[in-house]
Amino acid sequence: MSSLTTMNTPKGLEGVVATTSSICYIDGDQGVLAYRGIDIHELADNSTFEETCYLLWFGKLPTREELKQLRDRMAAERKLDPAVVSLLHTAPKGIQPMDVLRTAVSALSFYDPDEKSNDHDANIRKSVRLTSQIPMIVAAYDRIRKGKKVVEPDRSLSHAANFLLQLNGTPPSVTAERALDIALILHADHELNASTFAARVTAATLSDMHSAITSAIGALKGPLHGGANEAVFQILQAIDKAGADPVEYVKGMLAQKKKIPGFGHRVYHTEDPRATHLRKMSRDLGHSSGQDKWYDMSARIEQFVKADKNLNANVDFYSASTYHTMGIDVDLFTPVFAISRVSGWTAHVIEQLDDNRLIRPRADYIGPPYPERYVPMEQR
Amino acid sequence: MSSLTTMNTPKGLEGVVATTSSICYIDGDQGVLAYRGIDIHELADNSTFEETCYLLWFGKLPTREELKQLRDRMAAERKLDPAVVSLLHTAPKGIQPMDVLRTAVSALSFYDPDEKSNDHDANIRKSVRLTSQIPMIVAAYDRIRKGKKVVEPDRSLSHAANFLLQLNGTPPSVTAERALDIALILHADHELNASTFAARVTAATLSDMHSAITSAIGALKGPLHGGANEAVFQILQAIDKAGADPVEYVKGMLAQKKKIPGFGHRVYHTEDPRATHLRKMSRDLGHSSGQDKWYDMSARIEQFVKADKNLNANVDFYSASTYHTMGIDVDLFTPVFAISRVSGWTAHVIEQLDDNRLIRPRADYIGPPYPERYVPMEQR
Repeated sequence: MSSLTTMNTPKGLEGVVATTSSICYIDGDQGVLAYRGIDIHELADNSTFEETCYLLWFGKLPTREELKQLRDRMAAERKLDPAVVSLLHTAPKGIQPMDVLRTAVSALSFYDPDEKSNDHDANIRKSVRLTSQIPMIVAAYDRIRKGKKVVEPDRSLSHAANFLLQLNGTPPSVTAERALDIALILHADHELNASTFAARVTAATLSDMHSAITSAIGALKGPLHGGANEAVFQILQAIDKAGADPVEYVKGMLAQKKKIPGFGHRVYHTEDPRATHLRKMSRDLGHSSGQDKWYDMSARIEQFVKADKNLNANVDFYSASTYHTMGIDVDLFTPVFAISRVSGWTAHVIEQLDDNRLIRPRADYIGPPYPERYVPMEQR
Repeated sequence: MSSLTTMNTPKGLEGVVATTSSICYIDGDQGVLAYRGIDIHELADNSTFEETCYLLWFGKLPTREELKQLRDRMAAERKLDPAVVSLLHTAPKGIQPMDVLRTAVSALSFYDPDEKSNDHDANIRKSVRLTSQIPMIVAAYDRIRKGKKVVEPDRSLSHAANFLLQLNGTPPSVTAERALDIALILHADHELNASTFAARVTAATLSDMHSAITSAIGALKGPLHGGANEAVFQILQAIDKAGADPVEYVKGMLAQKKKIPGFGHRVYHTEDPRATHLRKMSRDLGHSSGQDKWYDMSARIEQFVKADKNLNANVDFYSASTYHTMGIDVDLFTPVFAISRVSGWTAHVIEQLDDNRLIRPRADYIGPPYPERYVPMEQR
């Protein structure tokens, strides 16, 4: 390190304030999550995903007319360039949907009429397009890899209902639509989580919205972030397949020093307020669909891990059984997370660019002392 | 913000140590840059890009046999899946090459035999592949957009020479090959610059190498980072076209409060040691090719900005005239930066994963005070 004044920080920037933000309020001790100051419980009970998008992008709740306009804009952007659909067709069938989503979103930039503009209004337009088109990509690739026909969007449906229609080929029940809508509200933003931070780091070079969202998708893929709900369900499946006792299975994992996905959180030191809703949703959906076993298994694991390790279930733990009960494939859990989180990512990129500074920290050099000699080849 | 202990930091994390690293040593006051402790001047004078890759990835200079093996591996990976070439053909012709590169690199993950593995050795293999294939993508897209035939790689050539062959259709002169080789050495790594930091943030969720490098390419694109050398040349071109006096032109920009790209650096407070080499290269190449004007213009601007603003030319300032004199199109300057920097990005991803912790800072909430009421629609 040079003689510059530098601040040493905890590993992984834990507890380090990297920016100011007006988007998301978290109190990790009290278990509070709020978008633009409004508690997530109020939003989950009363709002819709489209209204939440408005709140995140424009900083206030919309009037009836403003909400109608945004819904219409989002519905109108339910279209994919044929070249993007063709990219989904040529992608091999066995690959990870998150790799496909990252690539297709990057390719969307080729066809975006605002690609060369990076101002506030252009980025709002890109936010609407990306939020409308990401679920279409997820649904289309899933149909294509299963040898099914891509389903046309229905612009009269809500964002949540249209995704389930394009995924399953039939319109969802009112219960399923509302369950997904709530899940999308709950996942929409979470302050400087790793994918949002990746998006802001990328945007802060004055690159562009598609670059930032592509970075975010790549970061979300990881099992320490969005990928955790997939890891949770793989454990539930393994327990189910083995006919094992869930608590004994988890005890075995702990004995092997394995981490139990879906527990603990960098920021929350009490119940993750999103878990409260997802637990209830998992139970209700399990019950109404006659598939209680995933919720029952999850509840027993939660009780044990809380008692034994004093770790709380996080957003990922009950989203696993919830999404499975809704008929969503396990490797689409993280893409569904992206379908929601793109609303927050785009809001953060716009906020970053409205008062930008390059995000460029330092590293503390611990390698071979300078100057190390360049030893000529014949002397090595 | 919650009651958690948090550290407030300067905007853009300036001067904040985000991680330890053994890869790159910078002394911004003394103008020192070193890879694994070896001064950049020694490497520029004596090394090759392939040897620099070895140094970055393995932490030491190679023996003759080790270097031969790495060169052979890199040459053997000079191949692109036909689906990636076809993606380059279907991309519209007028779009930004960095958007194409970001998308194509993301798509490389579809065909990587190690895609589902994230261990150290698999990531070394991915580093070799990405480093070999990124220049092929840049060259192939440039040929395709110009209606020319994609050139087959020559596995007997050096990394630098093969890129120039695949770009131009003819093998480069010894001078051009060595000039590019030195430019690739100079740009290979620079500690926690924004694109490298984006790569590490992405990788730290335990996502994967392709996600991390895709993030980095998106971040490099920005004019506050890799895009700066393109901005420099656009100014040189504008001056040339207008037949203007370079100093008067720059004075005019300053009078309009415009930033002069290619000057100043977050980390260096003295001459950027890379600029020393690129200045010389720009002069020599300009002279040998009979195109002195770009260097002459650059030198006059540098002298004025130094005297008037006390700002030093950075790596981007003389790379603009250097690359132009080498016959590289202006919108390929940043892709050429990526061709080099992928060696450092991949080294950083491997280092991050060898001792990983999720990179997840906090934001200081300055939005509407919590709790803000959810006002029902009819009362808005």
